[in-house]
Amino acid sequence: MNHPETTVIPARKGIAFEVRRGSRLKIINTHGSQVLDTWAFALDDMKEYMSMEHTRSSTSRIIPATGDTYVSNLFTPMLTVIEDTSPGIHDTLMCCCSRKTYERLKYEGYHDNCNDNFHAALAGVGRQSAFTPGPLNLFMNFPVSGAGVITREPPVSRPGDHVLFDVKADLLMVISACPQDIQTVNGVGKMPTEAAFQILN
Amino acid sequence: MNHPETTVIPARKGIAFEVRRGSRLKIINTHGSQVLDTWAFALDDMKEYMSMEHTRSSTSRIIPATGDTYVSNLFTPMLTVIEDTSPGIHDTLMCCCSRKTYERLKYEGYHDNCNDNFHAALAGVGRQSAFTPGPLNLFMNFPVSGAGVITREPPVSRPGDHVLFDVKADLLMVISACPQDIQTVNGVGKMPTEAAFQILN
Repeated sequence: MNHPETTVIPARKGIAFEVRRGSRLKIINTHGSQVLDTWAFALDDMKEYMSMEHTRSSTSRIIPATGDTYVSNLFTPMLTVIEDTSPGIHDTLMCCCSRKTYERLKYEGYHDNCNDNFHAALAGVGRQSAFTPGPLNLFMNFPVSGAGVITREPPVSRPGDHVLFDVKADLLMVISACPQDIQTVNGVGKMPTEAAFQILN
Repeated sequence: MNHPETTVIPARKGIAFEVRRGSRLKIINTHGSQVLDTWAFALDDMKEYMSMEHTRSSTSRIIPATGDTYVSNLFTPMLTVIEDTSPGIHDTLMCCCSRKTYERLKYEGYHDNCNDNFHAALAGVGRQSAFTPGPLNLFMNFPVSGAGVITREPPVSRPGDHVLFDVKADLLMVISACPQDIQTVNGVGKMPTEAAFQILN
């Protein structure tokens, strides 16, 4: 097997790319504490999207575990977690950050945000989505207490940690390296970094 | 004040209706264990929808409590819970049921479902949505353990229980009386029933 190509996901930015059924997709937290807002669409139908609410219904977990499958709004299997070298803490509950997020945080002026990154990355490959699906927030650590209260903690992942997915359908992926630098979403240093992915055939 | 008009939400069916900012909306569990899948849109913009992922981000709870506000995908306040005579157990995590749900449950033939009810109710008032937002499942009792495992329990609400919302924006509401009669989503009797609402000005 050839050494797989590594594609960098630039800090604070989004990227869109195709993956094919039967491939594996490795998403790498290069510097260790970068949250990656992740979406998937059926390659031939932008109306079919990876759905966190359908995935929770299918897996009966708020964070799918190794062996679990992320599904679409039609319950089509999209991505199965086959390896996770991180502690397995991700998030399926929270919206991506948007212009409004930073307005609410009293940031003045334009701030990069995952919502704009998502739509810009799609536009860059000639696609569009009528809305922003709820994201899979890889490596994000927002624990839920037994009483249902959500807290915001820095990631517990480490440099080089990765999640390896078995790709179950032809997909258009979008990943945004979250530019949140006001809260500790991306670590106590509040320093968004690049990350990376590999497609293994 | 005039006695408010009560509108029945027929068993297994959906209904769409307008509510105006400054009104109050009372949603009534007439027979006690009926789950009501509930959506809201900005009345003048179907692209702005009540978003469970934005509401969780805003309230830091998986089930908003009395005093909390359901917000849109632009964080616009839509519905504030001002009274809840039920034990306050609702769901913001799960997708609505759809044709696929009943296929997965091995039901043969067409089964009423909240997804079709949602789109049919919108069509009935001359509107459409490009997708089905994640619903607010009023009275649905799917507890989440401290380990993040979701279980499926019958509702704990009682006949006549209601949730009263302060309406914070002009809204198009859609409510589907969930037709699930295979699992105990709508109570141990597995018998979907009608419910009701009132608009109080």
